[in-house]
Amino acid sequence: MTGHPVSRRLTLGVIGAAAFAGRTLAQGGGDPLPSWRPGARRDAILRFVAEVTRDGGPGFVPPAERIAAFDNDGTLWVEQPLYVQFIFILDRVRALAPRNPAWRDDPVFRAAIDGDLRAATAGGTAGLLRLAGAAQSGLSPEAFQGVVAEWLAGARDRRWGRPYTALVYQPMLELLAFLRANGFTTFIVSGGGVDFIRAFAEPVYGVPPHQVIGTTFALRTGDQDGRVTLTREPQIDFVDDGAGKPVGISRHIGRRPIAAFGNSDGDYEMLRFVTEGPGPRFGMIVHHDDAEREYAYDRDSHVGRLSRAMDEAPDRGWQLVSMRDDWSRIFPG
Amino acid sequence: MTGHPVSRRLTLGVIGAAAFAGRTLAQGGGDPLPSWRPGARRDAILRFVAEVTRDGGPGFVPPAERIAAFDNDGTLWVEQPLYVQFIFILDRVRALAPRNPAWRDDPVFRAAIDGDLRAATAGGTAGLLRLAGAAQSGLSPEAFQGVVAEWLAGARDRRWGRPYTALVYQPMLELLAFLRANGFTTFIVSGGGVDFIRAFAEPVYGVPPHQVIGTTFALRTGDQDGRVTLTREPQIDFVDDGAGKPVGISRHIGRRPIAAFGNSDGDYEMLRFVTEGPGPRFGMIVHHDDAEREYAYDRDSHVGRLSRAMDEAPDRGWQLVSMRDDWSRIFPG
Repeated sequence: MTGHPVSRRLTLGVIGAAAFAGRTLAQGGGDPLPSWRPGARRDAILRFVAEVTRDGGPGFVPPAERIAAFDNDGTLWVEQPLYVQFIFILDRVRALAPRNPAWRDDPVFRAAIDGDLRAATAGGTAGLLRLAGAAQSGLSPEAFQGVVAEWLAGARDRRWGRPYTALVYQPMLELLAFLRANGFTTFIVSGGGVDFIRAFAEPVYGVPPHQVIGTTFALRTGDQDGRVTLTREPQIDFVDDGAGKPVGISRHIGRRPIAAFGNSDGDYEMLRFVTEGPGPRFGMIVHHDDAEREYAYDRDSHVGRLSRAMDEAPDRGWQLVSMRDDWSRIFPG
Repeated sequence: MTGHPVSRRLTLGVIGAAAFAGRTLAQGGGDPLPSWRPGARRDAILRFVAEVTRDGGPGFVPPAERIAAFDNDGTLWVEQPLYVQFIFILDRVRALAPRNPAWRDDPVFRAAIDGDLRAATAGGTAGLLRLAGAAQSGLSPEAFQGVVAEWLAGARDRRWGRPYTALVYQPMLELLAFLRANGFTTFIVSGGGVDFIRAFAEPVYGVPPHQVIGTTFALRTGDQDGRVTLTREPQIDFVDDGAGKPVGISRHIGRRPIAAFGNSDGDYEMLRFVTEGPGPRFGMIVHHDDAEREYAYDRDSHVGRLSRAMDEAPDRGWQLVSMRDDWSRIFPG
């Protein structure tokens, strides 16, 4: 994505300042985690990082092996009331509808176009995948990233009236920056579409495109007007969620991370894969228990269901973060 | 691969010294490319790097977009008389044969076990894929990388009597280090197996596992003895060669590289994909024309065939490197 004007604009936007402030703090010797309240979770982070970076200590991990994996939806940014990518898909279906008149004959598409969420999702996963395929295919990955970046620049969340890229968790931005300042390489490992996340991960999280792992759609190669072309197809060919996360990690990173951060049962296998390795390990789950400042949900949520991973957290040594108690601030700015 | 004792040993081996020497030169202000003879190819490299790094200049490329893609076999190390990975596969089939007595009833496997190369390859691609699958499946990616690293530590090339990791091209090590010293992120994009290359890419090339893209085998997930497991399956699920290389690049890097280095028609689509992008671009082909110091082959070779990419190189502005004329030294040490 050479050029990438929209991403550049995002860099200078609401989020850039906060993310870079976190980075400066971590490197400047001040409090690296100002939005984490004193307590067990904050202590656990500081203890783990001190342990793996203490040269000559029993838990020392060379920088090349300091790999940290972060889920995205619900771990780095808001996923309620709907995944941001699903809101994008609905908007995009509406935008493309005039060019696709036949869509109105399909109940799922007609519902999406009319903004009838209940009917649009009534078709279950099969219907959602058809919407996702139609809304996100036909472009090159580069052009698609541009479409996403442009949408993100204009779209606003209804509850806060802010861009979705402003609804990222300030404590997690500080954590990302703190880990990087201590020699970690930070990866996103998401069930979301890889090109969708790559459209904003670098300016917003400081994570370059090649450190984003996600669900992928098939790519078709071609040769058109004297150029090699890549075109996104409507079919998903890899689902980076649940048991798929260790697979995505292994294929992409080729080395087991030593720290993993998630918020739902979709992160359960990743958390186990990471924390079952030898040597110092760190697993953390963000628990959404703050209806006032964000949302409160876990076992019964249709988005970001958290049950088994929470039940097993104590025995597995995973830190359960209370957004309400452990975070003094939720969003930047 | 936390721990990875064999890789650590390799770091301290014959190659480490040469690779790090190249890095120091590039950063220390001396000649960054001492093994490149003065001439058009060397000038083209220096000019390109000067152009993209000149802040405020018309060709400036921000560091995040300075991505370089390198083929491996025949571009970074020797691929004649057979791909190193194929030699590994044959050795591994022999090593596993006592535990698999039924293999002797299969002509392809029997030939491989008996060291009859002609008969082992007579089955064509299908036979080779069966050998590759049998030799490389059944282990976790981590354990498989360990097997490869151990094999590389002991195996010797017949012609030079040296480890294969010593038969890497010193001018290309210098080029990798020079690009990195100028803010580039260097990736390997190979038709070889990704876990095979990850077993040595970091100590030998300075390329971490997550910057290696290659052909992949299917992975099976499981849960055994209370651990999440990943097991390599015998089936290839992605071939990172030819038209597959732009696909592998797009999925893994998510951004079009601005420089590509190859040596065969398997790199043709990658070279085009990279050099057809906007702004400054660099494409280079290593031409094996030095039978005395290495090998001489192109159009008629069964390994690393180079024909179309060479024919189109002048029109496409790709640099054709003569190993004989442009390189003062082939191997490190």
